[in-house]
Amino acid sequence: MIAYRNLRVALLGAGSVGAQVATLLTEHHDELASRVGAGLDLVGIAVRDVDAPRSAPLDPALLTTDAMSLIESADIVIELMGGIEPARSYILHALNSGADVVTGNKALLAAHGPELQAAAEQVGAQVYYEAAVAGAIPIIRPLRESLAGDRVKRILGIVNGTTNFILDKMDVEGDTFENALAVATELGYAEADPTADIEGYDAAQKAAILARLAFHTDVPVEAVHREGITTITAAQVSQAQKAGYVVKLLAICERLTDPETGVEGVSARVYPALISRQHPLAAVHGGKNAVFVEAEAAGDLMFYGAGAGGIETASAVLGDVVSAARRHVAGGPGVAETTHANLTILPIDSVSTRYQITLEVSDAPGVLARIASLFSEHGVSVEAVQQSVASVGPDAVAAGTPDGSGTATLVIVTHIASERALSRTVAAIADQKVVVRVESVLRVEGA
Amino acid sequence: MIAYRNLRVALLGAGSVGAQVATLLTEHHDELASRVGAGLDLVGIAVRDVDAPRSAPLDPALLTTDAMSLIESADIVIELMGGIEPARSYILHALNSGADVVTGNKALLAAHGPELQAAAEQVGAQVYYEAAVAGAIPIIRPLRESLAGDRVKRILGIVNGTTNFILDKMDVEGDTFENALAVATELGYAEADPTADIEGYDAAQKAAILARLAFHTDVPVEAVHREGITTITAAQVSQAQKAGYVVKLLAICERLTDPETGVEGVSARVYPALISRQHPLAAVHGGKNAVFVEAEAAGDLMFYGAGAGGIETASAVLGDVVSAARRHVAGGPGVAETTHANLTILPIDSVSTRYQITLEVSDAPGVLARIASLFSEHGVSVEAVQQSVASVGPDAVAAGTPDGSGTATLVIVTHIASERALSRTVAAIADQKVVVRVESVLRVEGA
Repeated sequence: MIAYRNLRVALLGAGSVGAQVATLLTEHHDELASRVGAGLDLVGIAVRDVDAPRSAPLDPALLTTDAMSLIESADIVIELMGGIEPARSYILHALNSGADVVTGNKALLAAHGPELQAAAEQVGAQVYYEAAVAGAIPIIRPLRESLAGDRVKRILGIVNGTTNFILDKMDVEGDTFENALAVATELGYAEADPTADIEGYDAAQKAAILARLAFHTDVPVEAVHREGITTITAAQVSQAQKAGYVVKLLAICERLTDPETGVEGVSARVYPALISRQHPLAAVHGGKNAVFVEAEAAGDLMFYGAGAGGIETASAVLGDVVSAARRHVAGGPGVAETTHANLTILPIDSVSTRYQITLEVSDAPGVLARIASLFSEHGVSVEAVQQSVASVGPDAVAAGTPDGSGTATLVIVTHIASERALSRTVAAIADQKVVVRVESVLRVEGA
Repeated sequence: MIAYRNLRVALLGAGSVGAQVATLLTEHHDELASRVGAGLDLVGIAVRDVDAPRSAPLDPALLTTDAMSLIESADIVIELMGGIEPARSYILHALNSGADVVTGNKALLAAHGPELQAAAEQVGAQVYYEAAVAGAIPIIRPLRESLAGDRVKRILGIVNGTTNFILDKMDVEGDTFENALAVATELGYAEADPTADIEGYDAAQKAAILARLAFHTDVPVEAVHREGITTITAAQVSQAQKAGYVVKLLAICERLTDPETGVEGVSARVYPALISRQHPLAAVHGGKNAVFVEAEAAGDLMFYGAGAGGIETASAVLGDVVSAARRHVAGGPGVAETTHANLTILPIDSVSTRYQITLEVSDAPGVLARIASLFSEHGVSVEAVQQSVASVGPDAVAAGTPDGSGTATLVIVTHIASERALSRTVAAIADQKVVVRVESVLRVEGA
């Protein structure tokens, strides 16, 4: 039964997601009306250039460059333009005009989320953003509502499809980073300028959004420690494989206590890390995303699916549109989001995890004992050491090892240690004459 | 800022989940108050016998046998008694007294869900039941809200931890069903009377609930086709393994069109099936649950986590309590559930899937050709046939194969075929002299 007037929906942006949203709103009009109890009429699509080529055919009569007038006429505004401005001003204008807002704009939410939420709260409107993190995967609503009575301890997320595609290709095919990136670009998984993805900026924005929701604490994106995947080599991936690990770019949000200062707080960080091949996240291949949540009562949960794609992301947008529309019809709760917890945001130094350190050392008696004692002196406990068969490679010759002997590779995996203790240990090791090179230091996550 | 009066929460039932809910409500009182904007006061716990032993210490002053008076005094009623009556009457009484209801009672929801939803809608109250399916895993809210703008095509769920534990043990350790069940009982994964789990009744209730939500259509539990796992043998599991499959008890909800009648509708069914070891559901081990959702726009999604356990399920209950409480504080939308679609519920005969048929046949020339032609005559296309090395086993001797030769095992995997065509084919095959025995017919899902 449809008892309510039709609702006016305005769309800002007609890129790949926007075009799909427009198509679905039109094609599924009657079905959505039944679910909502009111028709959802797409009344206009604001674009920069009405004559630009589109990925899907759109009704030209809907296109307009006058976003502000369109916004003022709408009950629900869908913002899919991306970028900070004018998206931010448009959303504020929509809220102040009494509309609810649905957005997939992670950059804007990471930078101005608190401002938008405050504006919404002031006028009793809502900002929905299921599409902003992990595309089609429902993760915002589960965190905001389903887990609202629990305490999230940690989130490990594969939230960037481009880097997961690249790392998966390196893992499965033994590819180099450069080749895997080239293929990702060719197949459309990576953009012409892939910096935002491969340097972890995109994942960091998502980490900021997830941490805010999980910990009821504002986490500015600048506070997210960020390392990209550009330094990951085929050798590292293959070595990880042999040791039963896989390299993934992880967005990690964690409640923790700094082991030295005793300060309690939260950490949000993005870096490539090793995880066990037995971990559910290890089975996330190609451009897929997954978010692994460890909660105090619920235990371990995982949410898996498509992290990007026009039609997949459009599904998340439409779910939000239906929620917003039901609120219009039935009257709805205020923004179910608070940052009352206001926890301290801890720097990467406060974090403790496991590490894999790969060293090229001179192949002389007593070297292993010397390295082991350095770990012990810095309070870092060693879980496993693997020493490769000694070899006299070009590196050893070039490096001129002290005693003219060959070199060996040591791969050391530690027990849980703090970043501080680990840094000091690695600095002391690098200082040793018998150490030709610290080849890599990678974190091991998911324990 | 707490600006609202405290809300009165009544708990019905103090079993393993109820006791955890009571503990968490008390211990996390201030934290939950901050999240809701109002304190949640547990005002009483209705039990059958106030002196019965409890799994967790509860404040004796809260215990009462007068459920009706307790219900009348509450803003939110949490029903965790299980069973149909008096749970149903209590919930109706709560709704009519103006309270919102949170329940984890899958049997009641599967049997009387429409009645409860109608009662709630009439008074503008809500029934929340995230805990009823897949324990701690948020699946109700994602289906009801996140995917509300999409079209669900199919759900494949591992929604019963007991049977997954048993089948996983058979798969990993080569155990028999009987032994695996004995271990499950010993470890507390199976109840003293395991019928509800191993015969698929529990999974069928969950399938009815999921199908209703996914397809906006009432699906009575009696309409759910149900087969249990008691006939699954170690030999079947091992044969599945060799062929790259694993046996799982699946709850399947699907939109489909009957291939013969052309009738469109939905199917809800529960049976043990083979799925590829590459499918994400194959990696769901032990007592864990997972729900794999295939949606038109969102593509494939999976939700994974603990399907049972007192504290895990309590997390889902508390998430619902917080949602209900926020609605009290902010005012909230009516029940966001409709069965407007009212689709036809199709019987198992309308379903099409792939099949694995294992036959013991006499090891004579031309047998394979004869069997293959029977498939072809019934319009069932064969994907693969594997014939074991011929053997003269006791079965062959006992069966007295027509020509006195030994027997061979044929394992045939079909392409997608309808249940009707498959049944006819199997009947015709069983009729053949050269067929000693149809050892098993298993469905292959997840393609």
